[in-house]
Amino acid sequence: MTDLERLRHSCAHVMANAIVKLWPDAQFAAGPPVEQGFYYDVELAHRITPDDFPAIEAEMKAIIKANQPFERVVVTREQALDDARRGRLAALGDRPVPSKFKIGNLEDIPEGEAISYYKNGDFIDLCAGPHVRRTGNIGAFKLNSVASAYYKGDENNPQLQRVYGIAFKNKSQLDEWLEMQEEAKKRDHRKIGAEMGLYVIDPDYTGPGMPLWLPNGTVLVEELEKLAKETEFAAGYRRVRTPHLAREKMYRTSGHLPYYAESMFPPMELAEQGGGHGSSSGPSDALSEPVSGADDSRPNQPHADRYYLKAMNCPHHHRIFAAAPRSYRDLPLRLAEYGCCYRYEQSGELFGLMRVRSLNMNDAHIYCTEDQFAQEFNAVNDMYLKYFRIFGIEKYVMRFSTHGKEGLGKKYVNEPALWVKTEEMVRQVLIDSKINYIEVPNEAAFYGPKIDVQVWSVIGREFTLATNQVDFAVPAKFGLTYRDRDNTDKTPLCIHRAPLGTHERFIGFLIEHYAGNFPLWLAPEQARVLPVTEAQIDYARGIVDELRAQQVRAEFEFSNDKLMGRIQRAEAARVHHILVVGGREREANAVAVRIHGKGQQGVRPRSEVIAEMLESIRERRS
Amino acid sequence: MTDLERLRHSCAHVMANAIVKLWPDAQFAAGPPVEQGFYYDVELAHRITPDDFPAIEAEMKAIIKANQPFERVVVTREQALDDARRGRLAALGDRPVPSKFKIGNLEDIPEGEAISYYKNGDFIDLCAGPHVRRTGNIGAFKLNSVASAYYKGDENNPQLQRVYGIAFKNKSQLDEWLEMQEEAKKRDHRKIGAEMGLYVIDPDYTGPGMPLWLPNGTVLVEELEKLAKETEFAAGYRRVRTPHLAREKMYRTSGHLPYYAESMFPPMELAEQGGGHGSSSGPSDALSEPVSGADDSRPNQPHADRYYLKAMNCPHHHRIFAAAPRSYRDLPLRLAEYGCCYRYEQSGELFGLMRVRSLNMNDAHIYCTEDQFAQEFNAVNDMYLKYFRIFGIEKYVMRFSTHGKEGLGKKYVNEPALWVKTEEMVRQVLIDSKINYIEVPNEAAFYGPKIDVQVWSVIGREFTLATNQVDFAVPAKFGLTYRDRDNTDKTPLCIHRAPLGTHERFIGFLIEHYAGNFPLWLAPEQARVLPVTEAQIDYARGIVDELRAQQVRAEFEFSNDKLMGRIQRAEAARVHHILVVGGREREANAVAVRIHGKGQQGVRPRSEVIAEMLESIRERRS
Repeated sequence: MTDLERLRHSCAHVMANAIVKLWPDAQFAAGPPVEQGFYYDVELAHRITPDDFPAIEAEMKAIIKANQPFERVVVTREQALDDARRGRLAALGDRPVPSKFKIGNLEDIPEGEAISYYKNGDFIDLCAGPHVRRTGNIGAFKLNSVASAYYKGDENNPQLQRVYGIAFKNKSQLDEWLEMQEEAKKRDHRKIGAEMGLYVIDPDYTGPGMPLWLPNGTVLVEELEKLAKETEFAAGYRRVRTPHLAREKMYRTSGHLPYYAESMFPPMELAEQGGGHGSSSGPSDALSEPVSGADDSRPNQPHADRYYLKAMNCPHHHRIFAAAPRSYRDLPLRLAEYGCCYRYEQSGELFGLMRVRSLNMNDAHIYCTEDQFAQEFNAVNDMYLKYFRIFGIEKYVMRFSTHGKEGLGKKYVNEPALWVKTEEMVRQVLIDSKINYIEVPNEAAFYGPKIDVQVWSVIGREFTLATNQVDFAVPAKFGLTYRDRDNTDKTPLCIHRAPLGTHERFIGFLIEHYAGNFPLWLAPEQARVLPVTEAQIDYARGIVDELRAQQVRAEFEFSNDKLMGRIQRAEAARVHHILVVGGREREANAVAVRIHGKGQQGVRPRSEVIAEMLESIRERRS
Repeated sequence: MTDLERLRHSCAHVMANAIVKLWPDAQFAAGPPVEQGFYYDVELAHRITPDDFPAIEAEMKAIIKANQPFERVVVTREQALDDARRGRLAALGDRPVPSKFKIGNLEDIPEGEAISYYKNGDFIDLCAGPHVRRTGNIGAFKLNSVASAYYKGDENNPQLQRVYGIAFKNKSQLDEWLEMQEEAKKRDHRKIGAEMGLYVIDPDYTGPGMPLWLPNGTVLVEELEKLAKETEFAAGYRRVRTPHLAREKMYRTSGHLPYYAESMFPPMELAEQGGGHGSSSGPSDALSEPVSGADDSRPNQPHADRYYLKAMNCPHHHRIFAAAPRSYRDLPLRLAEYGCCYRYEQSGELFGLMRVRSLNMNDAHIYCTEDQFAQEFNAVNDMYLKYFRIFGIEKYVMRFSTHGKEGLGKKYVNEPALWVKTEEMVRQVLIDSKINYIEVPNEAAFYGPKIDVQVWSVIGREFTLATNQVDFAVPAKFGLTYRDRDNTDKTPLCIHRAPLGTHERFIGFLIEHYAGNFPLWLAPEQARVLPVTEAQIDYARGIVDELRAQQVRAEFEFSNDKLMGRIQRAEAARVHHILVVGGREREANAVAVRIHGKGQQGVRPRSEVIAEMLESIRERRS
């Protein structure tokens, strides 16, 4: 538990103490710190609303002011059960009703483990701790919201009120956080997404969690793809395209089935003629493979077949690696695809673009030898840094997760030497390239070390964007090999990487990061040309045509509305360049430039303005 | 029946006559003309192989030489049944076994319809005709192949041998056809696809009918998409992106379910929380719509839910149209997407890229008013012609299918005035633009007239690439409206169009059309630079870097193999520009140019060659 978590957990106790003072029949369940503060689950006949917060906060302030010490008391299980039955836990003394949820919590503590209370003033709670030394150490706090939650997360249990709060060491930290929350609310990607017509979710027809990208959002999607394609072309990647579904055998081989089945859409069951070669569409374009299973050795026998939507692209890419004999001369082979995957997230978990069921991934798999690994991995990191510069991402961290020895052969593939060697290679690349990283032991993937990439938006919110993984295990499951210099067959390493993550999450991040005010190259509408009067319509249209011939997304607007109204509308639509042309501008072959959010830039020669725009777009300037 | 079909059908009789002469126990079923000639289904203990063709052909030639007249004889049903029982039909006289399949065919002739025989020489067959006047009218013929087929296409019936042949008015037509077949075989897209590493079908893992695009094929896919995007941007289309699945309600509303269900993948069944608004991911980005069905009026009630893979993009685009209030000022609204659809073709029907289950469609839907229709439709045709020019397609026809009055309210939506009006608009556009078209009455789509676009490859084979449809009906089913000038809500017309068809079929066509020798802009490997000796490695790499910086797909090859071997390898891989650099070329900052299929082009200045390549690519020269 970090210092801040300890402080926040202590604040949860103080909140429970305050609530039970106000409503003595309150029954408490669990009150942990969470990413954005803390909560405590409470059962209470009174329905707590934000209107109650001032009263609760006043009691909390009194408790903090009293600067009570937090005292730890170790008790026997019998003692704790007896106290719980008397209603004394998460309470201020005996009560007529037992502390029923605490009895349930006690049952979860394994035999032989110490059972402890934490006390502050008259308030006693069953708690493993740790806490700050005194209530006075809680420098600043605020209650946020109330939600509902089931006891122990199980919908068969009673529903409780979950009261959320936030706490910091001091008031200035709290104020900064509150300000960031306010700003984040203004920048909410769902709000801006709707304002700008970027995407829409259509739960009745398409289904929840599957955004339909509207024209303006599709511009963002396609500009990102263009950036990735250019960047990957320059880095020697080769693009592929694979279907959105595969037969059960694919995911059995990869190991995703049955373990990952809950996160996948359910299968499509169909009766198919012959599983394998019998149903191929001709000998010349079908992948041939030794018959490997009973199911596939009976061509032309009808049998039930299952297709799954792909939840990841790697198995498809592995089959492309397998589609031709490979030599060491073919490596590194870097296969890239903007593959759309489908994952079955619980509907309660879905959230705008940040948690979705359809994921367009900036995916690639790099097949390489051990000797090539360091250079390939370094190149992947360079690509991240290049993207960070383009998007003005100044704060990031690479969270490097390594294996733990005790998990070898269980949680981790049993290749101790390869683990140590590869982790050392990864570590060395991270050090040499002076990348900002932290190392987290015992959190690697099953098949190799991984790196989670976390970035902070311009207002200081943290986003997990992408994961890089080094894969020792799955290429072997698919029987992938290359013929080495020494004429033996070897299994390649595979680096999984997706620097731009998914369209959905990355665009969600960018919306907040830019507050919807995208740089010129990304702006859905890059220019709008407004003639002041009818006399400049042709001139204005000529400018639009010139821009569009250069693939610039330019529009024209003339109506009976006053110029100022049209300018305001363009500003509201976040049009990047607003080009106003009146009689004088037409005369001088010029335009009056107005940049969204920056105001008027003066009257300038048409050719100069257009050339500058094209350069800014080409260089993807911020 | 066309003249050629009559001739071919007559040739089928002659073939049956010859077969029954050779194997008197042969029992015949049906022998119609087909697109590529004719066949006759025969039951015979002897298994006919191409080794038997010379003998059969010799008998046929004798019959043709005899120049027997085809005589039509009308008989009663009793007479026909009696003759069939005596084994006389499709035979040369009485036989010990009845003409059993002819008895079955007789049962299919409705009461009251005339029953006729056609006789030539001693051969009598049950047949409605028509035929040529004499066997001597069959100018030239050839037997092609034998396949197997079930009687009446029903797999519960006996399996027969289907003997295929081809026939023409004269030998030169036959020779031309045979030559085209030979050439088509060499250009077989499956063969060239495998040679060039364009795609692979992986029936065991991904499933039959779902190509995986390998790097070289993905180049074709992405170049076509780039072409379409640029062309559509210039034509004022706006791009969208939609998921690959939708809830059952989508396809019930569109009318695809239940009627089209057999062509769709089976549903994914899942238990979902609340159908509609309860499961939306926030009020700000979810499409709101009046609650329209019982299923959707019970938010938060779990109920079984079905998702289908999309078999077409239109319903998704209709929902995007519905995502905002639309005014006449927003029309025409042209929504374009390279949407990937899935259709469940029978595995026996699958054929390389030409008949697949995953279809990447060059799709768009144009929503417009009646007044805008002619101009929009004309612009679509212009786009076709533009593409034809780019791909050197010289022969095409637009097959314009109109409604039939008797089908109104049944086969066709009951809007007589709108049918006549729209068909007249379509016809006028076709005439005015001097496009090559034919009109086919009574073959329109349910919701409006349609145009099938047929093109011929350079070797004269016909391909159906695309369909344009005018849609009166489905926009109304989705409740799509726009607010017109007069402040009333009207339903837009919708034009469905996909000039490049699907990637799969169009690339299949292009492979044959170009025999894999793609023009520079499309070529998977546009250039390969070969240094003669080690001394030119750096110079060669510099050229590759310069080309790649301009997004040219250039590779480098140096090995211990002799130069000629490396050149031959590059030619075999159909590399478009082979640039050889020796000492003299390096000295002069020049390259020795060799163009695939055209041989040596001489030594030329490096900058000039690169500039020419870039221009050829930019202009998409053939």
